Order: sequence, then structure tokens, then C-alpha cells
Amino acid sequence: MTQQPLRDERRPANEGRRAAARNRAALVAAAREVYAESGLDAPLSAVARRAGVGQGVLYRHFPDRATVATAVLEENVRQIEQAAATDGAGLADVLGVLTWHQAESAAFVGMLHAKGAAGGSAVPPYAVALSVRVERALRVLLPARHPLAAEEGDLMIAVAMVSGAVTGAGRERRTHRALAAWRLLGVDVGPVRPFDDGTG
Amino acid sequence: MTQQPLRDERRPANEGRRAAARNRAALVAAAREVYAESGLDAPLSAVARRAGVGQGVLYRHFPDRATVATAVLEENVRQIEQAAATDGAGLADVLGVLTWHQAESAAFVGMLHAKGAAGGSAVPPYAVALSVRVERALRVLLPARHPLAAEEGDLMIAVAMVSGAVTGAGRERRTHRALAAWRLLGVDVGPVRPFDDGTG
Repeated sequence: MTQQPLRDERRPANEGRRAAARNRAALVAAAREVYAESGLDAPLSAVARRAGVGQGVLYRHFPDRATVATAVLEENVRQIEQAAATDGAGLADVLGVLTWHQAESAAFVGMLHAKGAAGGSAVPPYAVALSVRVERALRVLLPARHPLAAEEGDLMIAVAMVSGAVTGAGRERRTHRALAAWRLLGVDVGPVRPFDDGTG
Repeated sequence: MTQQPLRDERRPANEGRRAAARNRAALVAAAREVYAESGLDAPLSAVARRAGVGQGVLYRHFPDRATVATAVLEENVRQIEQAAATDGAGLADVLGVLTWHQAESAAFVGMLHAKGAAGGSAVPPYAVALSVRVERALRVLLPARHPLAAEEGDLMIAVAMVSGAVTGAGRERRTHRALAAWRLLGVDVGPVRPFDDGTG
């Protein structure tokens, strides 16, 4: 009588966990698409809709906007850090990876405004923290005589300037405008591509 | 019996017109403040609240978001056009006026993204039209050997880049970042000030 149908009990639990993992992955993928198109101001309801789940499911995985945005932007920032940590990488190579992500994602572009925007306006702390990581990755590779090395804030002002130029729809158009902006700044940029750590 | 109290009828009508004019002026002033702080995405309810009128009054004067925004941005654009039309004005002088308005107003900065952002994304037509007027005013003063004269789109890409740099709160900080951006572009900018047509 105390014999419980253990397997049957375990199976639904496992299925529940698998379904939860599937939902989370679908939500992150949906958020990546929605934020890339519309920026970080896109409503969370659009993310849930794109993922094909209810808003309750979204809130169970991501209690607030910051946790969704961090899950999505973390990957952009990690690629830039990895590119910067690669043996023999120069600033131009890392700027190529940065530019790829600027062309890809309106959310990433919005994040790069964040640090500059700090001070008074409502900049989410996660965006500032991620932007600081980008700055750190670039700064270690900045040569002393680089056009962006003259004054303390120039490096990230230039990144914000390129972000300002990267508007409109379509990767080709956005890449073209980003490269025109770097050219106007007199800054060399390597191939525009995502970082490939060789494990893919 | 058909003698109507004409004066009494007229007086309320005049008072009504005066009240309407006062409301409209209060709404434009409020919209200017709200948009300067928060950009063109600020809700119209915030404009009505700041003006101290109900939303019904707002909608009576401005049937949609575009008419409010145009009423506010028109003045920024007009000052740039007037600066460009002044005898002996050079590009640097007009860029000084442009930079003053960029430091003043997040809405104006947002508008200057508009033309670049066109193509697929939801850019309001009034913003594109006003941005085109800014471009026209600047372009007639662009010397052939200017750093922004090399390629067709460079002039407005540079304006979008400076707009990208002008983030954060406070005129001093925003002006400082705008001037750093123009310096990185190698572009001379005259005194940062509003246009004074001498009639003020």
C-alpha cells in the first residue's frame, strides 16, 4: 500500500524539467530576436508571444526585464571578451567582432549607450555593468598612439558614436553605416564577424 | 424676446479662444520640456500632466503624436535654417547651433537618428522631413575639402554619430560629449549657442 509508482512519479518530474528547459531556451531565443529588431524597450509580452508561451511562463523563468536582457546580451559581451583574449588579437580584430554585434542587435547598440547615458537618466544597472566589460576588453588592446587614446573617455565615446550611426533595418545597411563611422573616426576595423572560439 | 445678450455671448467666446490659446501654449511648452528630457517616446499623458490640462484638451489641440512633436521640433530646425541663412555664416557656426540643440533636447537627438533609421523600422515621416531640412541647411555650407565631404552620406552619418555620443542628463555633460565627438571627427565647431536672430 505504501508502494508508490516511483517511475511514474519520476517521469512527470523529468518531463517537467525538460519542458521548463525547452521553454527557457525558447524564451531566450525569442528575446534575442525581439531585442535585436526592436531594442531593449520591446515589451516582454512580445517576447512571450514570439516564444509561443504565456506571460506566466516567462515570469517564472525571468522575474524581471533585467534578467531577460542580461541573458540575451551576455552572449554578445562574452564573444567580445573572448576575441580580446585570443592570442595575438589586436584592437581592430575585436572592433570587427563588436561591429558585427552592433549590426546584429539593436539591443546591443542600446546597451553601449548605457554607460555614457549614466547619471540622472534611468539606465539599468545590468546595462552599465555589461558596457563596462566591453570597455575593459577593448582598453587592454588600445595602443598608446591610437586615435582614440588621446583622452580618457574617447574610446567609449567613439563606440557610442558608431552605435549612433548604426540605425535602420538590415544587416548589410547597418554594417555599411558602422564601417563608414569607423572610417570617419580614422579607426581601423578588422573583418566584421562573430567570434568563433573553434568549438562550434 | 429676440434680443440676445450679445456682449455676454461674445465675451465667453473670446474667453474660450483665449483659454484655448493659453492651453495650446502650455501644451507646447510642456511637450518641449518632456521631450527634451525623455525623447519623443515620452507618453502624451506626461505632456498633458506637465501642462496641467486633461488629455481631452491635449487631443483637441493635437490630434496625434506627430502634431505635438512637429510643433516642438519645428523651432529647433528653424533656428538651424536661420543660422545657415545668416550672411557670412560658415558650417562651424551652424554646427555650434546644432550642437546647442543636441545638448538641449533628447527629442531633437532622436529626430536626427530618424533619416538614418529610415528603411524598415517605424520612423515617423515628420521626423524624416525635419531631418532632411537640417541636412539641406548644413549641406549648402559644406566646403568641398571638408572632412565630411568625401562621401555622399558622411555629413548626416557624422550628425548621427554625435547624436549617439550626446547621452546622459545635464546640458554641461551633454555639450562636453558632443564636442568630444566633433573633435574625434576632426570637425571644427563654432560657439555652442542658440540662434539669435537679433529680434529677441
